[in-house]
Order: sequence, then structure tokens, then C-alpha cells
Amino acid sequence: MTPPRLALVPGEPAGVGPELCVRLLQRPRDYDLICYADPRSLRAAADALALPLTLLPPDRPSRAPGEVAVVEIPNPVPPAFGAPEPGNAAAVIQALRDAAQACLDGRLDGVITGPVHKAVINQGGIAYTGTTELLAQQAGCEVVMMLANDIVRVGLATTHLPLRDVADAIAPEPLARTLRIVDAALRGDFGLARPRIAVLGLNPHAGEAGHLGREEIEVIEPVLAALRGEGLDLIGPLPADTAFLPAKLQGFDAVVAMYHDQGLPVLKYSGFERAVNLTLGLPYPRVAVDHGTALDLAGRGLADPSSLIAAADACARIAHIRSTRSDRNPPGGSP
Amino acid sequence: MTPPRLALVPGEPAGVGPELCVRLLQRPRDYDLICYADPRSLRAAADALALPLTLLPPDRPSRAPGEVAVVEIPNPVPPAFGAPEPGNAAAVIQALRDAAQACLDGRLDGVITGPVHKAVINQGGIAYTGTTELLAQQAGCEVVMMLANDIVRVGLATTHLPLRDVADAIAPEPLARTLRIVDAALRGDFGLARPRIAVLGLNPHAGEAGHLGREEIEVIEPVLAALRGEGLDLIGPLPADTAFLPAKLQGFDAVVAMYHDQGLPVLKYSGFERAVNLTLGLPYPRVAVDHGTALDLAGRGLADPSSLIAAADACARIAHIRSTRSDRNPPGGSP
Repeated sequence: MTPPRLALVPGEPAGVGPELCVRLLQRPRDYDLICYADPRSLRAAADALALPLTLLPPDRPSRAPGEVAVVEIPNPVPPAFGAPEPGNAAAVIQALRDAAQACLDGRLDGVITGPVHKAVINQGGIAYTGTTELLAQQAGCEVVMMLANDIVRVGLATTHLPLRDVADAIAPEPLARTLRIVDAALRGDFGLARPRIAVLGLNPHAGEAGHLGREEIEVIEPVLAALRGEGLDLIGPLPADTAFLPAKLQGFDAVVAMYHDQGLPVLKYSGFERAVNLTLGLPYPRVAVDHGTALDLAGRGLADPSSLIAAADACARIAHIRSTRSDRNPPGGSP
Repeated sequence: MTPPRLALVPGEPAGVGPELCVRLLQRPRDYDLICYADPRSLRAAADALALPLTLLPPDRPSRAPGEVAVVEIPNPVPPAFGAPEPGNAAAVIQALRDAAQACLDGRLDGVITGPVHKAVINQGGIAYTGTTELLAQQAGCEVVMMLANDIVRVGLATTHLPLRDVADAIAPEPLARTLRIVDAALRGDFGLARPRIAVLGLNPHAGEAGHLGREEIEVIEPVLAALRGEGLDLIGPLPADTAFLPAKLQGFDAVVAMYHDQGLPVLKYSGFERAVNLTLGLPYPRVAVDHGTALDLAGRGLADPSSLIAAADACARIAHIRSTRSDRNPPGGSP
């Protein structure tokens, strides 16, 4: 079996992304990493941290510690750590798109991404709401954002919506799609034969039998009932405050929260450093760090690489599981 | 200084309340406990757990392990563990009201309450939405529900509202009142000279400068600015997902969440067993357990008394701080 070949995209060059990549590259690995970046940016990070870095042509094997193959995406403006430059926004986005396209074309097996600075991209004249949305649009598919650490995996039924719009966004079709994508990913990407998914209610106490809201009765429960008929193992709708009790979490392979601030506080409290952001539903695995560009830390060697390391490990693991699965299936068979 | 005299109200007699009280009473204490209950119910719990229990008249000192003074509130229907009886609803409520009245009259110094079964009380013909609301109404004051463990204290700006009603409920006047009550309680009841309160945003990422909702800009920030002018130390509005990071929590004496499921998952994840429910703003301290009646466990000796023990300790601590404070002030002085 050939080792997975994974794209590594540092994200904002003025942030901690490049130095986290350099740190990641020092570690032994059993997969190839192909970095989509300006080589000068990687070199500057390696110099700032006094760490060895050998840059290789993009088609070369790239598995030795301290080495990485590079697809050059030049930054028009030489980046300075801590000072993001809207003039480099197009290059940041191109790196993401080119890496994703390589996966869509079957040339690479997954994408690992560092943090992007949303405001700077928009200042650079590019409408950008997030890498998850960008990759979904490029691939033309529906996706689910999942954040995960070694304690819990949280999928979100809605992501970056004002709170007052959340209740109306919980509708049967998108909720069913979210749950199907999470179930398929737990099976296909995490290798779980019969994943158990906890589904939170929308309202406090999951509506308390309709006394605190009726969305559980009118939307969530019917969706769960229908999907159980398709073989999904869904628990809920559960009250969000007690669903995350450690003893309960042990019985779930993932929790699907109805909205951002219902699902993510426990995820981040329980292990922010080791948390990763997965995009489920794409034709390829994409795993990102669960933190921002940390401009104040950039270039100083202080940033913690745990999340990027966890993201790379997760991406490689999923790529491996997918390749094992496709080895078993005849070409053209169901994925 | 006389030791505090605290009311202990077991709550639903068919649940775990009575046996948790019996367990609590086995411990050494430096305050008097006066139990508002049917003595037969306490006796049945002690017998079920094979623990000693001596019941004393209500005016007797009650600090020795295994002893408790009792104000008799008879249950019309002999309770059976696990089978709550609507016919006892009025007695359950009367115990709470009588204990609270003793505090309002200055005869007792605080109330510790076990779990009440909301549905059974309503089946018994009594409109009841929660003990917090009942005590607030009886005392004629505005209150804040705070849940606390040894990791974090979480005050709620709204409590048991359908999610779709939350955004409109975040208005300047009630939010300012909530923050003032939390600040006053941290000073007066927790003895903090200059409490630091983290205030969460309503929307994901605290609205991200208006891109994900404008309540932070239009409501929360102006309230915080005004209250800072009054001397409150308020941090925020903060994104809920990262406000609970352990390193950040160390800088806050409390977190005020805008709604139930934003604030309570981390609280319960981080230490459910030791969590208590405080009602801030009453003329007396009231601390409750942070769990339900656990009917399936009742009478079996399996229920964990940690939350009731923590509630009693917290109530005694607050009563002690209040009495120390009032000792210092002349009668009629500001509280």
C-alpha cells in the first residue's frame, strides 16, 4: 500500500501557521506531506525557530523529518510575522483551492489546513466566510463541521448563524442531511461499524415535553424516527446540559449539537489544544486546526503545535482508512 | 457568634431527597440544621440505608452527627420510594414556603433544598415552574440562578425559555439587573472584594463585530459600559466557546451566560457531582442540589450525596459571611 499523500496548507503567512508547519515537519511520519505555500514563508519560520527545513520539489517523496515537498504559491507581498497583508489574500485562498483541487483530481489524499484570518481575506477583496464553506462550494457538496478531541466529537447542525436565526434553521431536511453525513463519516472515516450518535435538543431540557419549545416534538423527533428506520443509531433529543456528562459521553461516538455555542464550549474546555476541525462530507478528508492565527505569537516560537499535529494525524488516519476501504472495493463500486 | 441555623428541605419524598438528607446529617457540622419534612419520610430513608437518625424538636440545637431538628410537614399519602404522589404536592411546596418564611422572618439563616419533581407538583394542582421562581415570588424580589462547582460559577441571564425567545429576552434592563445581582452576591455572599465577571455574547463568536448578530453591539456592550461606570469589573462580551478555556476561567470569579445551554454544559461536564444551584438576590441564602429526584435510585442507598453536601457547605459559608458582615454594621445600616 502506498503511503497517503496529504496537502499541508499553512494559512495566513503572517500568523502562526508557517511555524506550526515547521514544527509538524520535524516529527517522524508515515505519509507524504506536500506544502502549498510560499517557500520563503516556510524558510522564514524555520529560521525564526532555528529548526532545520529542507524544501523538495512537489513530486518527491516527503516523509523524512525536517523535509517537505512544496507546491509554490508565491505571496506578492513579503509577509511579516504579526502583520497580515490583504495583498496576500489571493495567495492564501489559492493555496487552499489548489490543494483541494489536487484531492478532487485524485492526485492527493487529503488536506491539512492552518488558520486563516477571515477579516484580512475580506479586506483583500475576496468574499470568504470560512474555509469549510469555500471547500464545500468548490467540491459542490453539503458538508458538516465537526470539532473533535480525544474526549468528544461534536458535529454542528448549524454553524455561524445569529442566535435568533437558529430555531428556524432547524428544519427536517437539513437536519436529516447533517445526521446522515455524520453517520457516514463515523463509519467511513473513523471505521466505526455501528456509530452511536447523541442528538441534542434545541431548547433547554430538550423542550421538557413541549413546555420549553416544540421543535423537539415537531422537527427533531420525527427526523430521528425516520433515520432510525434507515439504520442510524441515534440517541435523543437530549438536554444539552447533561448530555456531556463524562459518563454519558462514553456511550456516544459523536454528539450533534443544534448550534455553535451549545456544542463547542465543552469541546474546547475539555481539550482545546488537542482539538481539530473536520469537514465531513467532502470527497476527501480535510482537517484543520481549531484555533486562529494568533498574530501576537507569530514568529516567536511560542505557539503550541498540538492542534496541527492532531489535525495531521487525523487526516492521515482517515486517508489510510479510506484507501484500505477502496482497496477492498472494485473500481466504480460504492464509496 | 451563634452558629447559623439553616433549613433543610428534602423535596420530593419519593425521590432521593430524604436519603441524601440522612447522609448529609451523618457528617460533622458547625451549623444547626432544621429539617422541614414529614418525620416518617426521614425515618424511612434512614431505615432503608441502615443509618442512625435522631429526630429532635424544632427549637433544639441540631449540630451533632446523626441528629436533626424537625419542623413537621406531614405528607397526606405515605410516600413510597420511586412512586411520587401528586397528593403530597401541597406538602412538598408547604415545606419550601415555610422554610423560606422562617428566613424572611429572621428565624433562620438560609435554606438548603433537595430535588422537587416538577410534573408531580403540577399534577397535584399547583402551578409550579421551579423552586427558584417560587422563592423569588414569595420574597417579592428579582433573582438570578447561578450554578457553581469548584471550577466555575455560571449565572444565567435567562433560564427556562424556548431558544427562539432568548434573543428578544436579552434587553438592557434585565441584563443590567442580572449583572448587578451577580456582582452583589460575589461581594456579599462570596466575600470577594472586587469580583471579575466574564459576560458571554449572545451570538457565536460574540457576534464577530456584528457579522453574526448585533445584540452584542446594541444591547450587551452598552450595558457593560454603563455598569463599568458603576464600578463593576466586567469582561466581555466574550465568545462562549473559548470563554470556558481552563486558563481563562482562572481569571474570572463568575461567568454570566445569556442562556441555559450556553452556560451549563461546561459547568456540568467539569463537575456535576459537586455542583450546586444558588438563588442570588433573595434576602437569605438559598442553595439547592444540581440534580433531579432520581426516582429510579430512591431508597436504594445508591444516590451520591455530593451535591447536597456541597449545597449545605455553601449555604453555611454564605450565612456565616452574611452574619459576620451584619455583626460589623449597626442595625439598620446598609446590608
